[in-house]
Amino acid sequence: MKIVVDAMGGDFAPKVNVDGAIDALREFDDVSIILVGPQQQVEETIGAYADQRALEGVRERLTVVDAPEVITTEEHPVMALRRKKNSTFVVGMDLVRRKEAEAFVSAGSTGALMAGAMFKIGRIKGIDRPALATLLPVPGRPLLMVDAGANVDCKPSWIVQFAMMGSAYMNRVMNLEKPQVGLLNIGVEAAKGNEQVQQTYALMEKPQPFEFCGNIEARDALAGKCDVLATDGFAGNVLLKNTEGAISMLFSLLKEGLMGSTKGKVAALLAKDTFKTLKKSFDATEIGGAPLLGVEGAVIKAHGNSNARAIFCAIRQAKQVVDGGVVEVIREEVARLSTGAPEEEKA
Amino acid sequence: MKIVVDAMGGDFAPKVNVDGAIDALREFDDVSIILVGPQQQVEETIGAYADQRALEGVRERLTVVDAPEVITTEEHPVMALRRKKNSTFVVGMDLVRRKEAEAFVSAGSTGALMAGAMFKIGRIKGIDRPALATLLPVPGRPLLMVDAGANVDCKPSWIVQFAMMGSAYMNRVMNLEKPQVGLLNIGVEAAKGNEQVQQTYALMEKPQPFEFCGNIEARDALAGKCDVLATDGFAGNVLLKNTEGAISMLFSLLKEGLMGSTKGKVAALLAKDTFKTLKKSFDATEIGGAPLLGVEGAVIKAHGNSNARAIFCAIRQAKQVVDGGVVEVIREEVARLSTGAPEEEKA
Repeated sequence: MKIVVDAMGGDFAPKVNVDGAIDALREFDDVSIILVGPQQQVEETIGAYADQRALEGVRERLTVVDAPEVITTEEHPVMALRRKKNSTFVVGMDLVRRKEAEAFVSAGSTGALMAGAMFKIGRIKGIDRPALATLLPVPGRPLLMVDAGANVDCKPSWIVQFAMMGSAYMNRVMNLEKPQVGLLNIGVEAAKGNEQVQQTYALMEKPQPFEFCGNIEARDALAGKCDVLATDGFAGNVLLKNTEGAISMLFSLLKEGLMGSTKGKVAALLAKDTFKTLKKSFDATEIGGAPLLGVEGAVIKAHGNSNARAIFCAIRQAKQVVDGGVVEVIREEVARLSTGAPEEEKA
Repeated sequence: MKIVVDAMGGDFAPKVNVDGAIDALREFDDVSIILVGPQQQVEETIGAYADQRALEGVRERLTVVDAPEVITTEEHPVMALRRKKNSTFVVGMDLVRRKEAEAFVSAGSTGALMAGAMFKIGRIKGIDRPALATLLPVPGRPLLMVDAGANVDCKPSWIVQFAMMGSAYMNRVMNLEKPQVGLLNIGVEAAKGNEQVQQTYALMEKPQPFEFCGNIEARDALAGKCDVLATDGFAGNVLLKNTEGAISMLFSLLKEGLMGSTKGKVAALLAKDTFKTLKKSFDATEIGGAPLLGVEGAVIKAHGNSNARAIFCAIRQAKQVVDGGVVEVIREEVARLSTGAPEEEKA
């Protein structure tokens, strides 16, 4: 399979992007990578890969396609995509649109990635809005939250589509037989929540091509009660960012508290390994990127501060999405969704 | 001042409610308390107060008003209020409505408290929706979030009112000269967020009787960037409950991690005090209850699992709201809000 990697996305491009791509080629024999970026700069970066001898087996599976323009995170996504026809986003996504590659990976602008995927690669027929999914590092039971911030104003039927797409991902990529799908709400009872979420609940209860397990309170979102958490992108983003903020606050308070006494300092020293392991379990690097679900290709958004390992993980994730046929499953199952339309009610 | 305390609200009623009320009377000379609940049961509980000699100075400031019916958290609030005319909520709030008391404190049903306050005590003129405020234990800078879950579907102008009421509370109860008010959003830029929050931002930017400091991301909500966080009750409740969930998850992971090795066990032992202090700083008991802002009286919702200390703190908080004249400030400032109405635009 062919995976396009944006050589210029993220804070440490192009070095970590090129390194991560080569690492992936060394690991996966069946993968070819197309790096999109300024030709000369990318070629030079490949030339600077630490272990040049390792390139021997993989160089023939690595192509560079010239894309001299870069879209920054400060630019208006749609305007930038229109103006910069030679940007890594436009050139790279055109390759996917023309079926010359199956996947696109970028650590660049989230907005440009989403708008580009929507307009260049195109939605899967029947899907109203592609959604950004994020794996939350819930201990023992990773949780896929859809949508994590791409769609801030949602119709209930879109959230049902998010649920189906998230279920398809967890089934095909994480190998869960029957992923349990919860709906983010402020209480467990069916009558709880705002209008949008109540209407979504009513739709979710109909026969759907996924397993609905009811409302999930934000308090329980990190408690391993479901595999997919469906939500609009506003509440989803609040939950995601707040979790990061709460964890970071607690770690710094803990450090501050321990450093205030000799006993505490000794404790901190002895607990160092535990703290490290714990911090690592919340590290986005190993989790990979956020898949954009609902478009005609595997699209992965890697963290802006990705290192080579994070880029490698995002490429591995793209491969899993392609191998698992996630796009094909979504294409099939969108037709099986109960939309709550009047014809359905009579049936 | 006279404060009504619901003797039957919460998991450990009436004992902790009566104990907390007596403790408050011993502490505050200028407070009288009216306990509402089944007369005989409440009288007996008073008789069982541990230190009967301590009652001598306070017994004359403690009245019991008979309210034999109790509204549970399982009941539909509005229906229950209508049916149970002799419930603690109806009897107690009628006392506030008739100006026979200034405040009402309950650890019972949140729904009944809100509905009762709205229909029995009544809104402050000009306030569209009373809001539930919650103090988040941000280290060094407590954060008042309004609304914390009372209003799940909001108009932008309501959120502006929440902001003003939160600012009045932080000014009069927490003694902050110019509380900084942030708007919960998924990015800091003015154009970020869903439609509701964008419209709210536009209103907030107009001259208002509070200091607007812009959008606050959920990641920064716990980082001490503002004093009041204005939001609709759905997102607010997600943030509140998720914070509780994240902290509890992290503590249990930490415990699990440390208990896995001898070194860790020693560390846990040495760090015991720090853990205790840290846990206490997140303990709702000391923070008091959640004030319901926007009604014609001081109304405090104490936690359902309140102990006597928590009830005491909620009563102290009610006293602070009355002493600070929060209701009067809100009454005055509601007229000064910019509503974005056309007349205003022309000015």
